[in-house]
Amino acid sequence: MTKIIEPRILKGTRDFLPKDMAKRQFVMDKIVNVFKRFGYDTIETPVIEYAETLMGKYGDEGSKLMYQFPDNGGRQIALRYDQTVPTARFVAMYNNDLPMPFKRYQISRVWRADKPAKGRYREFYQCDIDIIGTTSPIADAEIAKVVSSVMQELGFPNYVIKFNSRRLINSVLEGLGIVQDNYAKVLQTLDKLDKIGREAVAEELATVLDAETVEKLLGTLVPENSEDVFSQLAGYDTTEVKRFIELCEQLSIPKVNLQFDPSLARGLDYYTGIIYEVVLPGMDLGAVCGGGRYDDLCGMFTTKQFSGVGVAFGFDRLVLALEELGMLDALGLNSQVLVTYFDDSTLQKALAAATTLQTAGINTEMYFEPAKLSKQFTYANAKQIPFVVVIGPDEVANDTVTIKIMNSGKQKTIPSNQLTTYFRGLQL
Amino acid sequence: MTKIIEPRILKGTRDFLPKDMAKRQFVMDKIVNVFKRFGYDTIETPVIEYAETLMGKYGDEGSKLMYQFPDNGGRQIALRYDQTVPTARFVAMYNNDLPMPFKRYQISRVWRADKPAKGRYREFYQCDIDIIGTTSPIADAEIAKVVSSVMQELGFPNYVIKFNSRRLINSVLEGLGIVQDNYAKVLQTLDKLDKIGREAVAEELATVLDAETVEKLLGTLVPENSEDVFSQLAGYDTTEVKRFIELCEQLSIPKVNLQFDPSLARGLDYYTGIIYEVVLPGMDLGAVCGGGRYDDLCGMFTTKQFSGVGVAFGFDRLVLALEELGMLDALGLNSQVLVTYFDDSTLQKALAAATTLQTAGINTEMYFEPAKLSKQFTYANAKQIPFVVVIGPDEVANDTVTIKIMNSGKQKTIPSNQLTTYFRGLQL
Repeated sequence: MTKIIEPRILKGTRDFLPKDMAKRQFVMDKIVNVFKRFGYDTIETPVIEYAETLMGKYGDEGSKLMYQFPDNGGRQIALRYDQTVPTARFVAMYNNDLPMPFKRYQISRVWRADKPAKGRYREFYQCDIDIIGTTSPIADAEIAKVVSSVMQELGFPNYVIKFNSRRLINSVLEGLGIVQDNYAKVLQTLDKLDKIGREAVAEELATVLDAETVEKLLGTLVPENSEDVFSQLAGYDTTEVKRFIELCEQLSIPKVNLQFDPSLARGLDYYTGIIYEVVLPGMDLGAVCGGGRYDDLCGMFTTKQFSGVGVAFGFDRLVLALEELGMLDALGLNSQVLVTYFDDSTLQKALAAATTLQTAGINTEMYFEPAKLSKQFTYANAKQIPFVVVIGPDEVANDTVTIKIMNSGKQKTIPSNQLTTYFRGLQL
Repeated sequence: MTKIIEPRILKGTRDFLPKDMAKRQFVMDKIVNVFKRFGYDTIETPVIEYAETLMGKYGDEGSKLMYQFPDNGGRQIALRYDQTVPTARFVAMYNNDLPMPFKRYQISRVWRADKPAKGRYREFYQCDIDIIGTTSPIADAEIAKVVSSVMQELGFPNYVIKFNSRRLINSVLEGLGIVQDNYAKVLQTLDKLDKIGREAVAEELATVLDAETVEKLLGTLVPENSEDVFSQLAGYDTTEVKRFIELCEQLSIPKVNLQFDPSLARGLDYYTGIIYEVVLPGMDLGAVCGGGRYDDLCGMFTTKQFSGVGVAFGFDRLVLALEELGMLDALGLNSQVLVTYFDDSTLQKALAAATTLQTAGINTEMYFEPAKLSKQFTYANAKQIPFVVVIGPDEVANDTVTIKIMNSGKQKTIPSNQLTTYFRGLQL
């Protein structure tokens, strides 16, 4: 304890101060409440797992970016890289003890040994929901409904849930005679449409496809206008997409927030049906949510087949977007009332007042030192405490308390025994 | 994705199923609500830190039990071993941006490469509160008050907050002429009183102290009966302890739950004032909470001095104790209502009913397949869903819904438009 070590944290990791946490918890609580309202329950899996459980599930890049190390017993350990593979392991292990279909949400940290950049962290939160063990199209639509409810609950004035079907996109690729080896490259390139535009995408596609195929592909998948989207796809089976739209309507998802985009690909992921991506028009943030249906979630851990559908919200991006929109400005910290400490002659009454308020369920704290009142008010302001209860010699003599309302500076003296009633009336 | 990997987790780590999580979240919410009620705010620090930040703060054992490894950039990384050292680093870094005194709570995971055993995990939760930046005795008493409020809120019929003062115990050791080199051994031995009894403790103390000193020490520190506790300590300065008791009384901590135990030592830790330990009489669990005051929390990271006082709850032990007392048995999962899927002719009405309930804030889910009703009821039972809304052809024809109350088996048919009113009336 002698040598002083410079206090610092690793790049790509973050400390959150109380005012940051107030914002993050506000957003998290809203999201979780929506998940619960649709009957999702949460589970928890360990942060550290056998490396072999996680390795090889995320492609070469994933294996490179995974934090791993041998433990004292020589076991190779890895830090959780996402929540999906541990959930697959979980379902493979416990499916007999889980209600099926299994609706779960999970909000927790994951780690990637990535190069830190703006908005890219080495330790960050994922926020997922999945419905596992049913191929029902209602489940596909429910996921969209939950997403739309989350975006509404968070108060986003403007959001678009883009969707597509991997099955449909694959049938188009097949119909155009594109060889399977090129699917991944084509899908990844299509995903760049919003970023680099149609022309650049066409150029990039031309490295693996002939010019005519590129034109036909873009002519089929890139909507010229939203009315014609189905006529461009004439000859392809759009039943799944049409049923999805119908069910979304029956679930009252606002039409304005739902957009069929046949060019949406979600490149690298192993989706097999409906896929989703949520964007915030006018905000330069990229997708704030994405996901889809996969036919065989647990294939790496069991021969039992579990189809699943789900999405992951980009929790940090959601918080960032709400901050930019000024929607988290008014959030305070936990204390609602500070009771002052005037001097030792008033202390006992002050402690009793604080205790009375706390017992009544009003978040209240006591100042710990008999400091100048101005210093105690400064502390209240630093913690954004809206009310200060002043108990000085006059108040003790008259059996009253003085309440100072911090944002107006107004003061009010009331009988001691009306303290709880006063704050209850404010419905803090 | 071809080779199947056996799904398993590391010993000493745990998966939590939804029914486990319901219990854990119930306990966590209760605890957090108390923390908030006393004006504590939360912070978050990274799970991964520079190893040098954490190393050497926990003695030889801690260094051995810390998970650490080099990352891709050759930095030596460690997993969080407790929440106190990262908090000390945090306060050293951000004290200018924090309200002082700083009241923080934190509930998060820590990792120790320990030998797993019953109740000893490699990955587990710590649940701390601390008041940092004041030496006020009111802060010492407030920590006891928060602890007592948590135990009350959780419904423990019987708990004892034992306390002592390290300053007092050190003055006794000094008064008996015990050399400082033996303090640690003496304190650790005293801590075994409850476990191994007075005789065995005396024997162990005799390895470093002469027989007369052992007798005097135990005669001074081990209370013969609770009335005489201060007379045994005659000649030593008990002002701090007496002031603590007085303040606890003024904060309305029930006397029956508070016990001065001059033999309480909390061996290895670096406390300097009041120390606490909470036990559950009649339960073989050890302490469920412990802590104390330390004069120089951040000394390893800054020359600025911050005194702090705080406790850590053993979250897993609290959950275990409440389970053993049968106090978590009645907890259900999130869904309150399941809406059945009879067939395609009734689906649209069923989806509308589910949406109506969800919009009204009632946790509701839709069954995803047109399975036999008995199968849908089985699902409701598996998820402990208390109500099932049946919408079959009769209900559609009559514009009604039938509500089945699962625990009684009773059914009730009501007009569709009274659905929300019905469930609102139940105040779920």
